[in-house]
Amino acid sequence: MQSVHAVSLEEVARIVSGRLESAESHAHRLVSGVNTLDLATENEASFLSNPAYKRFLAQTRAAVVLLAETEKSSAPCPVIRVRDPHLGFALLQRFFHPEPASRGLRHPTAVIDASARIAKDVDVGPQAVVGAGAVIGAGTRIGAGCVIGQEVHIGGTCLLQPRATVADGCILGDRVVLQSGAVIGADGFGFAWNGKQHLKIPQTGRVVIGDDVEIGANTCIDRGAIKDTVIESGVKLDNLIQIGHNVRIGAFTVMASQVGISGSTAIGRGCQIGGQAGVAGHVQIGDGSRIAARAGVIGDLAAQGIYAGFPAITHREWLRISALLHRLPTIWAIIRRLGLSGKGEQNG
Amino acid sequence: MQSVHAVSLEEVARIVSGRLESAESHAHRLVSGVNTLDLATENEASFLSNPAYKRFLAQTRAAVVLLAETEKSSAPCPVIRVRDPHLGFALLQRFFHPEPASRGLRHPTAVIDASARIAKDVDVGPQAVVGAGAVIGAGTRIGAGCVIGQEVHIGGTCLLQPRATVADGCILGDRVVLQSGAVIGADGFGFAWNGKQHLKIPQTGRVVIGDDVEIGANTCIDRGAIKDTVIESGVKLDNLIQIGHNVRIGAFTVMASQVGISGSTAIGRGCQIGGQAGVAGHVQIGDGSRIAARAGVIGDLAAQGIYAGFPAITHREWLRISALLHRLPTIWAIIRRLGLSGKGEQNG
Amino acid sequence: MQSVHAVSLEEVARIVSGRLESAESHAHRLVSGVNTLDLATENEASFLSNPAYKRFLAQTRAAVVLLAETEKSSAPCPVIRVRDPHLGFALLQRFFHPEPASRGLRHPTAVIDASARIAKDVDVGPQAVVGAGAVIGAGTRIGAGCVIGQEVHIGGTCLLQPRATVADGCILGDRVVLQSGAVIGADGFGFAWNGKQHLKIPQTGRVVIGDDVEIGANTCIDRGAIKDTVIESGVKLDNLIQIGHNVRIGAFTVMASQVGISGSTAIGRGCQIGGQAGVAGHVQIGDGSRIAARAGVIGDLAAQGIYAGFPAITHREWLRISALLHRLPTIWAIIRRLGLSGKGEQNG
Repeated sequence: MQSVHAVSLEEVARIVSGRLESAESHAHRLVSGVNTLDLATENEASFLSNPAYKRFLAQTRAAVVLLAETEKSSAPCPVIRVRDPHLGFALLQRFFHPEPASRGLRHPTAVIDASARIAKDVDVGPQAVVGAGAVIGAGTRIGAGCVIGQEVHIGGTCLLQPRATVADGCILGDRVVLQSGAVIGADGFGFAWNGKQHLKIPQTGRVVIGDDVEIGANTCIDRGAIKDTVIESGVKLDNLIQIGHNVRIGAFTVMASQVGISGSTAIGRGCQIGGQAGVAGHVQIGDGSRIAARAGVIGDLAAQGIYAGFPAITHREWLRISALLHRLPTIWAIIRRLGLSGKGEQNG
Repeated sequence: MQSVHAVSLEEVARIVSGRLESAESHAHRLVSGVNTLDLATENEASFLSNPAYKRFLAQTRAAVVLLAETEKSSAPCPVIRVRDPHLGFALLQRFFHPEPASRGLRHPTAVIDASARIAKDVDVGPQAVVGAGAVIGAGTRIGAGCVIGQEVHIGGTCLLQPRATVADGCILGDRVVLQSGAVIGADGFGFAWNGKQHLKIPQTGRVVIGDDVEIGANTCIDRGAIKDTVIESGVKLDNLIQIGHNVRIGAFTVMASQVGISGSTAIGRGCQIGGQAGVAGHVQIGDGSRIAARAGVIGDLAAQGIYAGFPAITHREWLRISALLHRLPTIWAIIRRLGLSGKGEQNG
Repeated sequence: MQSVHAVSLEEVARIVSGRLESAESHAHRLVSGVNTLDLATENEASFLSNPAYKRFLAQTRAAVVLLAETEKSSAPCPVIRVRDPHLGFALLQRFFHPEPASRGLRHPTAVIDASARIAKDVDVGPQAVVGAGAVIGAGTRIGAGCVIGQEVHIGGTCLLQPRATVADGCILGDRVVLQSGAVIGADGFGFAWNGKQHLKIPQTGRVVIGDDVEIGANTCIDRGAIKDTVIESGVKLDNLIQIGHNVRIGAFTVMASQVGISGSTAIGRGCQIGGQAGVAGHVQIGDGSRIAARAGVIGDLAAQGIYAGFPAITHREWLRISALLHRLPTIWAIIRRLGLSGKGEQNG
């Protein structure tokens, strides 16, 4: 991905909605990309968002640095003041690396069913498969080796990276991104014991995904048993996540990698769930909840809370208990020293 | 998956082996599908198995509802009494949504080695690959983009969803289902340190899978180092599960998503393992064990037990400890209040 | 994988750098493979490395057994003394099952861009895709259904099992093995909230992998946000592992399955990380660290330590706390019995 523009510091400030400071003697500088403080060259902008990297500020060779309003500058270069340097970084990366447009390329090895309705400019990569009755909107790019099932609807300007799979009947909105290996619409895990064996229950629901959703590599979203599994608009899921059947995930919720959400659970809007956390089935998580990495949620959680641990409790409570857990040797020593462990109890 | 039958209430009762109650005035009703209590229409049957949904019973528009013998009915429609409404639901879903039969379709883009022996009615989807010496039984369907290695044996009436992989030499019984992205027979994780680097140990065992097994999306079952990895009949594995080399999983055992079983461990028959649980290597888990979600098993477990926690203990013990863990602040407060934390101990 | 040699006991001793004992009366024996103590036949060598299998030693039918110098032999067959029987086993397996050489086979269904530079003897399997500008070194084998992106560089004697994916611009050294379903170079999980939605940050770094690296089935290594994600030489990753963007993993580090490493974390050289462990982002793990299965690391760890638990502490400390955790009922009983739980405290 090569940068295609070179712009003035004023233009950089405009892109990030920032205020350029003390750039008089650098009016000629041109910026053609963005980089970290330690690696930026004189043609690149940089930014400070994680305090851990502040030590690189004074030595940076960047053309210009994005700083928060309150950050003291030790930078040897002009500064652009912004409200959120990380957002500024994002805006610059997006400016210098725009998504390529689809061009209507259909690789000759792609197998596209004659009954599929595909917008003219859609790209379909080599070895991809598009099933009968599928509908794909304008500007969407389907990568090599993807498999799109029958009657799948995919909106416009989506990007399916190589080897993504969308099973029969599933629905994707606009601007959805599937990373490689993602599996949308595999059968939910539904069986009933008949006294002799587990009978498979046909999973007849779909997966319905809104707009602006991103699904990570090798993440799995199971189709509903009867009702649909629903991923609302703006949701971002990292890699290797499991979403069980009939789960609903509210808009703009974000999950880090390896999270597991069991069947029929409803996650609210704007939640954040840390890596390797798990949520049991048939649970309701309120809007705006933040669930720490590795937490295990087994019951409903109120909106706007911060939770951690297993079984998950409030983060504050978990910090307290976690600290005391590490003080167990002290607790035990006190009890033993005072002879309280007395008769009938095992000593350590 | 459209429903293809419409049947009388008597026929519904027959399918679920139930007893139809008070249906005199509804003798004309026809049922063409099954749905949840809140969504069922007048042409659909419904069921109550999870008590959380009992509140929908009185308002359901369903043609008929499956209820347990002991459940008081507030339903405004006829009732079919069954021993297990969830099983009844499964039987109805299976009746209304039978698996499509294979039709002997071989997509022209499928690459099937001339030496493979494939029953006449087997379907092989677009872009699939079937290696030399592979054997595939009658009624099996191989989805788009699947890769079947050399000398693989696949039984009859199996279903390999798109992009499943079965590596060289592995064996699948009859009626096995692989969801998309499943990898059967990747190399086990075997290395030996020679003082300078980790030497790869060729993994020469196979994966041998019995009948009626289902393997979830992106689940991995490694081939054995020397002996085989064995998945006995009736086992059901959810998505994103890791099964290490030389593991043996007993018949009818069920695992929820993201479970990890380390190498050479033997899981008994009829076990249930909850999501994100892990079992260390070279461990024996007795028949009928139930291991809670997120448990971490590091030693042998006796048959028929219920286990939880990490390191896993009996579920009863774990509940006790888990409750006391949340009472640590109280314990600490008591000790501090009574001045027991005395000299030489850190106060909180 | 059939064995192709049959060799004398002396030759076996030479392969494993061992010392053959008391083989006079067995000078004629030929060995054509290696097997476990219980399954080995009279034409196979065996070995004892895991003490759990010592009980099989006296009854083995093996032609010869590899034993540690200090191990008393009850074997009814000749013995080869070695420093590390597991290494000896590895050396024999490698001798009897050498990796097949590439033969320059390009399957006619493979799609290889005309601008790709591929060494003459490289194999490319059916339905594989090799993108524009890709470079592939001598002796490398690309399995069925693999997708190699644009400008990818793959070294010599690599093995990509079926359906592995390497995204645009990523670099693999020599002798790298990717198991099926591995995804190298999916986008890192980078978004910035702009007040209304999560804006995707283009991930413009690469994944750079050294020599002799193995990546497990369905494991995901994300490309860097700006800088590269780096996997140094000799690293071995098991299945279903998540490596976030900008992570660096030091040479010869080994990780068991389902581990998750969050973005920008640096793992030292020669570390060992157990299954289902997780490491938070922006953390430094010192060389030679050993992190137990299921540990959760949230801060930097000093080199050469052994760590466990969540939040991770030293293994020794964790063992202590874990033991006391299981003694919480005792602690609580003591406090209650002595009336210390007094007024204002909840009794159990």
